[in-house]
Amino acid sequence: MNILVVNCGSSSLKFQLINAEDETLIAKGLCERIGIDGSRIVYQKIGGEKEVNEIPMPDHTTAIELVLKALTNEKSGVVKSLSEIGAVGHRIVHGGEKFASSTKIDEQVIQAIEACSELAPLHNPANLIGIRACQKLMPDTPMAAVFDTAFHQTMPQEAFLYGIPYEYYEKYKIRRYGFHGTSHSYVSRRAAVTLKKKYEDLKIIVCHLGNGASVSAVEKGKCIDTSMGLTPLEGLIMGTRSGDIDPAIMEFLAHKEGLDVDGVMNILNKRSRVLGLSDNLSSDFRDLEDAYIRGEESGVRTLKSFCYRVAKYIGAYAAAMNGVDAVCFTAGVGENSPLIRELVCEKLGYLGIELDETANHTRGEEIVISKNETGTQVLIIPTNEELAIARETYALVK
Amino acid sequence: MNILVVNCGSSSLKFQLINAEDETLIAKGLCERIGIDGSRIVYQKIGGEKEVNEIPMPDHTTAIELVLKALTNEKSGVVKSLSEIGAVGHRIVHGGEKFASSTKIDEQVIQAIEACSELAPLHNPANLIGIRACQKLMPDTPMAAVFDTAFHQTMPQEAFLYGIPYEYYEKYKIRRYGFHGTSHSYVSRRAAVTLKKKYEDLKIIVCHLGNGASVSAVEKGKCIDTSMGLTPLEGLIMGTRSGDIDPAIMEFLAHKEGLDVDGVMNILNKRSRVLGLSDNLSSDFRDLEDAYIRGEESGVRTLKSFCYRVAKYIGAYAAAMNGVDAVCFTAGVGENSPLIRELVCEKLGYLGIELDETANHTRGEEIVISKNETGTQVLIIPTNEELAIARETYALVK
Repeated sequence: MNILVVNCGSSSLKFQLINAEDETLIAKGLCERIGIDGSRIVYQKIGGEKEVNEIPMPDHTTAIELVLKALTNEKSGVVKSLSEIGAVGHRIVHGGEKFASSTKIDEQVIQAIEACSELAPLHNPANLIGIRACQKLMPDTPMAAVFDTAFHQTMPQEAFLYGIPYEYYEKYKIRRYGFHGTSHSYVSRRAAVTLKKKYEDLKIIVCHLGNGASVSAVEKGKCIDTSMGLTPLEGLIMGTRSGDIDPAIMEFLAHKEGLDVDGVMNILNKRSRVLGLSDNLSSDFRDLEDAYIRGEESGVRTLKSFCYRVAKYIGAYAAAMNGVDAVCFTAGVGENSPLIRELVCEKLGYLGIELDETANHTRGEEIVISKNETGTQVLIIPTNEELAIARETYALVK
Repeated sequence: MNILVVNCGSSSLKFQLINAEDETLIAKGLCERIGIDGSRIVYQKIGGEKEVNEIPMPDHTTAIELVLKALTNEKSGVVKSLSEIGAVGHRIVHGGEKFASSTKIDEQVIQAIEACSELAPLHNPANLIGIRACQKLMPDTPMAAVFDTAFHQTMPQEAFLYGIPYEYYEKYKIRRYGFHGTSHSYVSRRAAVTLKKKYEDLKIIVCHLGNGASVSAVEKGKCIDTSMGLTPLEGLIMGTRSGDIDPAIMEFLAHKEGLDVDGVMNILNKRSRVLGLSDNLSSDFRDLEDAYIRGEESGVRTLKSFCYRVAKYIGAYAAAMNGVDAVCFTAGVGENSPLIRELVCEKLGYLGIELDETANHTRGEEIVISKNETGTQVLIIPTNEELAIARETYALVK
């Protein structure tokens, strides 16, 4: 069965068509600037050339229409008709406490996703637009919702509650949710396969380090803690987000800069993290690594701060699980930066970790990069959220 | 030499008279409700009865005057004249980046403390009032300022910088400072003595768990990280403070409850932590322990959350130092709660820690409470901030 995986943002739409039986990627692409001047679709049949078409897309329904046309196009298409697409899997950012696993989409599920919009006001409405657009164009094709938060719903109360009045949890559901769940789930499972051990026997820490970044602790196949919280702002220092700060900084900044809460949030979400810390040098880790290697103060400061926080989260989660068998690096930065893995792991000798320098320079492979035979193992596990969504969808609809 | 140790709050003043040579406590006491109706002084000569006198104290000068009268009083006094008080040591909350150690007080120092008031608007002005009052009454007695932040000034940049635009560090000095420094310094030194090892050879984590609570990592005698930040709000869940939260919670709460930044800060500083989390059950850990033992949900939830966070900080700092030789518990809760020490340490078996149940029930003693011979040791070290202040003062003035 071919599964169309859709990841809908407010003005973008990413898609992949995946054969669910042999798990091969058939085609992939991206619609950009939906509802904005200069919208375009990028489409690529695997093995073929990348096609870019500038074409007006006033809304997501038009975008989905163009995606389906591209997939069925006589020349570069990959299926003869829409009936060859067996199901659609939608990435949904926030499932609140309602969704602890993926689910088939029906009207009730749509309403429940709508009810969670309050917790992710930028993302869930965009995700819903994608669902509606697909429903309109493929009314008989089954669809599944795969939530970024679902994998983390197994966290115990002591991990998900904040030290604020309990009434705010009861009234507003303010708690830790965590994100990147599909990635943390996929990567931790693959780690068990790579280590040739049972998933249920392992204590695994996954470091998903990309433009957004989060760490999770997976004990016996269940997430027991993760660094992102009510929103994706908490935790590690990120591309433009601050991560953990003293909450009193918000008051201090508001008074100093004459800002209200929203003004301060804008700084923390958009002008902070590695971009801010590096004094606007860059939000791209590759630039920061170059600056680090050249010995530039701003690059050194930023990378050291970033890696120090990652190491502290690994340490904290080792305590949360009373030990750790494997630390996995994944996502753009986690998979591709030997330097960052090295700076993180040099703090972790006390867990028995010794990095294999040659293995640490591998790219794009599932591989153990620690050379110690006992103690905690370190792995690179390339993430594949689209494949994970396709698998979840296939399991629900087959 | 007798040293008067003064800890001045906005409406209170705690004092101790300590013989700096043999380090014995001579007298101690407290002035309460200074500048408020119903003010009173509590005075106790060591070995004597506690005396309580309700007496108007319109200002701190009057309070200090009463303290000095009590100390020189013919009946219950401990010195014949003020000339027998060789020096005064003042506890100062915030020394900013200016003070990395204690210092003798002169006009320049007073101005520098004033300049730090912005970072501790509730505390530094009260501390300064205490200095001025003592100067007025004992103009020729040398005085020293001992800072809560000084011990943490050795933190490296990656530990003290936040992931916010670097300009806010340069412009406003927004960074991690840390508090309880005198306690963290005293306790970590005592741990080395108790373990009969060189302070400079050890990696020590100090858990100062009282109404305010903080953890610090002390490597080779230098603080390299601590849980409180720009203000004492960050870090552990505390008596009434939230500790670490997703900063976005402030925005969420502000919108939901119709509050501005100051309104939200009030919730985080005064209605949160164990009080809030326990749904107003109590902010006293003894009540919470009783509730925990009775199996009441609010008590269980609160203590588990509290201890879980302490364990995570210990784990994080083990990574920060690439290992840990000793974990110390101190302050009201840390010294007196076998249950809390047990709940924290049950997560730390992976560091080799095994608690000795009998030793864990000790009170008021410097003692090793772990029974493992190798791996990390766990200790109870009763803190004594006043003695530490007296020592620092003595070293500066003798």
